[in-house]
Amino acid sequence: MTRYQNLASILSQRIEQGLYPIGVRLPSIRVLSKEHGVSITTVQQAYRELEDQQLVEARAKSGYFVARRKMRPGLPDCCNTTQCSLTIPQWDRVLDMVNPVQPGETAFRFAAPDITASSLKPLTRSLSHLSQRQYLRTFDDEDIRGSFELREQIARLMIDSGSRMDAGNILITDGCREALSIAIRCVCAPGDVVAVEKPCFHAGLQLLHGLGMNMLEIPTDPVTGISVEALELALEQWPVKAILVTPTGNNPLGYNMPIERRKALLRLAQEHDVAIIEDDAYGELSYPYPRPATITSMDFTGNVLLCSSFSKTLAPGLRVGWIAPGSYMNRAIHMKYVSTGPTASLPQLAIVDFITQGHYLKHVRRMRSQYQHNRDLITRWVTDYFPCGTRISRPQGGFLLWVELDHRIDTQRLNRALSEQNISIAIGAVFSAAGKYDSCLRINFARQPTTELKNAVRQIGVAIHQLLEEK
Amino acid sequence: MTRYQNLASILSQRIEQGLYPIGVRLPSIRVLSKEHGVSITTVQQAYRELEDQQLVEARAKSGYFVARRKMRPGLPDCCNTTQCSLTIPQWDRVLDMVNPVQPGETAFRFAAPDITASSLKPLTRSLSHLSQRQYLRTFDDEDIRGSFELREQIARLMIDSGSRMDAGNILITDGCREALSIAIRCVCAPGDVVAVEKPCFHAGLQLLHGLGMNMLEIPTDPVTGISVEALELALEQWPVKAILVTPTGNNPLGYNMPIERRKALLRLAQEHDVAIIEDDAYGELSYPYPRPATITSMDFTGNVLLCSSFSKTLAPGLRVGWIAPGSYMNRAIHMKYVSTGPTASLPQLAIVDFITQGHYLKHVRRMRSQYQHNRDLITRWVTDYFPCGTRISRPQGGFLLWVELDHRIDTQRLNRALSEQNISIAIGAVFSAAGKYDSCLRINFARQPTTELKNAVRQIGVAIHQLLEEK
Repeated sequence: MTRYQNLASILSQRIEQGLYPIGVRLPSIRVLSKEHGVSITTVQQAYRELEDQQLVEARAKSGYFVARRKMRPGLPDCCNTTQCSLTIPQWDRVLDMVNPVQPGETAFRFAAPDITASSLKPLTRSLSHLSQRQYLRTFDDEDIRGSFELREQIARLMIDSGSRMDAGNILITDGCREALSIAIRCVCAPGDVVAVEKPCFHAGLQLLHGLGMNMLEIPTDPVTGISVEALELALEQWPVKAILVTPTGNNPLGYNMPIERRKALLRLAQEHDVAIIEDDAYGELSYPYPRPATITSMDFTGNVLLCSSFSKTLAPGLRVGWIAPGSYMNRAIHMKYVSTGPTASLPQLAIVDFITQGHYLKHVRRMRSQYQHNRDLITRWVTDYFPCGTRISRPQGGFLLWVELDHRIDTQRLNRALSEQNISIAIGAVFSAAGKYDSCLRINFARQPTTELKNAVRQIGVAIHQLLEEK
Repeated sequence: MTRYQNLASILSQRIEQGLYPIGVRLPSIRVLSKEHGVSITTVQQAYRELEDQQLVEARAKSGYFVARRKMRPGLPDCCNTTQCSLTIPQWDRVLDMVNPVQPGETAFRFAAPDITASSLKPLTRSLSHLSQRQYLRTFDDEDIRGSFELREQIARLMIDSGSRMDAGNILITDGCREALSIAIRCVCAPGDVVAVEKPCFHAGLQLLHGLGMNMLEIPTDPVTGISVEALELALEQWPVKAILVTPTGNNPLGYNMPIERRKALLRLAQEHDVAIIEDDAYGELSYPYPRPATITSMDFTGNVLLCSSFSKTLAPGLRVGWIAPGSYMNRAIHMKYVSTGPTASLPQLAIVDFITQGHYLKHVRRMRSQYQHNRDLITRWVTDYFPCGTRISRPQGGFLLWVELDHRIDTQRLNRALSEQNISIAIGAVFSAAGKYDSCLRINFARQPTTELKNAVRQIGVAIHQLLEEK
């Protein structure tokens, strides 16, 4: 974060907390410059940033004032009853959603990061350089667990999340999807019951379904995450084998589960001898820094399996993920051997270069700040253009916004209407096995904001208004 | 194949067939030159090649004569009773075997192709070139089924195997392993019985085990493949759901199953409504050209699933395979989505370049000829250096030789003895769920022959002799 962004963030927090009420005159540029030990220009930039966010307004010859804002949208209402579902009827809808991007399409539907950042260039260079001599390497030199150097680097990066691991605790996979698939098969057999967040990211639901598991959907709060209380009730009623959670930068809700709730979840799982599968793919994209500790880092039983990847922090096309399977390493290696064999080595080696040359942390820092900035923008755009009464999440990490519309709106119909304007969203229905969330949608806000993007959000708003008028 | 190789092959066939009996004087250089319309030099080169193979010997001023040879080794005795096994205890041994290569090791233990051929260079160039701009592409542009262009090219290549498919019948996977894993899950549920060849390649056995299947091992002839007769008996006794076979360039036996036997196998499977999973990874490395038609190409029911990859023809590090799942496409797409998501696009695009620019067919032709030549050499070396009574396979494709030693030899012990000389082989035990083949081994002969390789084979022979003497 640059100095002006830092200052803007401090001021914006004070406004949010009500320290500077609406209409009040804010400290002068000179006072702030002195108070924070920064230049006049920095304060001016910070105020301009806050103006962009419509938090403050400049009045000629009077200075800056806290702006009168639209009501902040409410939070989505995700919580309702626990239920056990045996099938997922949404596969056709998911398939529809993961179709390739059409020419000219403004696609909000994917959970893909921004891969246009210049800070990724050293990675592209490494890949190109290495592919001249490394690409065709056979498996002969490859450990089924993946590159030792990469596993060492991942263990180092994981110190930030509170974990003390070494290369021997980590297994490289073809993306986080394979890590999850391995994790589930490590702790469950087909027919077993797995508890999931509700809403749960659609690949997770399809994965459980594809592996023959039964899903138990647990009410999940858009700010504090999976309900430990509801889970406790569920564990008493159902023979749950594992709990699949994404506590940091949750997909689709964007929350960071508070540390105390993480601890309570772990305690509950340990009491019932249930495994936790922790999806940490968005972990390093948590806006609060340092990032929250993983549940894995708090566990001493080996019954928490961490799955992650470079797909959200770097690029999904690399297909490099990992699993830290706790006490299940032997099973995990067998699963890896039988599902795809060793992961391609070239991208692994390129990532090692990228990390050891210091580019990785710089890139992730930059993206974190970009995504946080974009979160504020998309929040404003949705507030401005979507109908009053729209509820939205408050992402604390990642680049996904969850939106709950008026209950008369079917977002699948909305998506069809938007397709005429070459815009696409992720429909809410695929985030639950039970076909809930028909009025919800998920929007990707990873890309650098442009007028075109802003207009696309406006067009979504117009389409929603039109659907409402038809009712 | 060059002219002299072609002539050498014709002459060698005549000798094998007994048209030129042992000790007989062969046609003069001049006569052959006229008969085949080739130069004197070509005939001389052909005779030199046959001398190298110890098929002919030159006698000063008299010309060339059919050489007196050592007895040709017998065929391995693979066939014995059908049996149903519920577990595979060999995982530790497999894990041992797939360890990374040690510095200085002469590794015969992998099923890896030769990737040092200069005909692969255009592929490396494409990869490097594409990675400058394509590598980080997100999934947004990617079809879960893989690159359309690549699927079109694969469909074209498959015409040689008798199949008429189009891109819509093919799904790209992370190597053949994922294709097999998807195929099995398309047609079976955990607990089902799958019939396999005996011996069966170890990854296949581990895969079935890992997916919770029960295996039924069917006696397999080292020349004609899986016993259709034994299979028929088995199908009457057991509720078999699928048959997993590698009819072309079989791993580990190297046979090409005769067309009539393929037809009989298909008929049998259709009568019993059992799916066939056809592993064709070595299909294009069949020495006879044109290659044998796949079982898939003879089927009209959609109950034969073809799995293949570029791992044996190009390089395993590419991690690009495919499945043509017959009538199971929808299930296969779901399995692909949940097991790893889309396959990395860069290697797919590089392979498209390599094929469309005409490099692929040239490369495969070259490797086929290299492997056939190496097959003759390794056969001679094993005949020369291994104890009398050793039995070996007669590979008709690929680069793997199956060797059956005196039954007092335990090849795991042999491997330990060889490890002191930094040589490794694949032990026979891992090729059967029932722990048979303790006296067998598999040797890779893909690499260009060198004195070092020849010496390594000699060292294996010496080690076997030593173990026999200890008995």
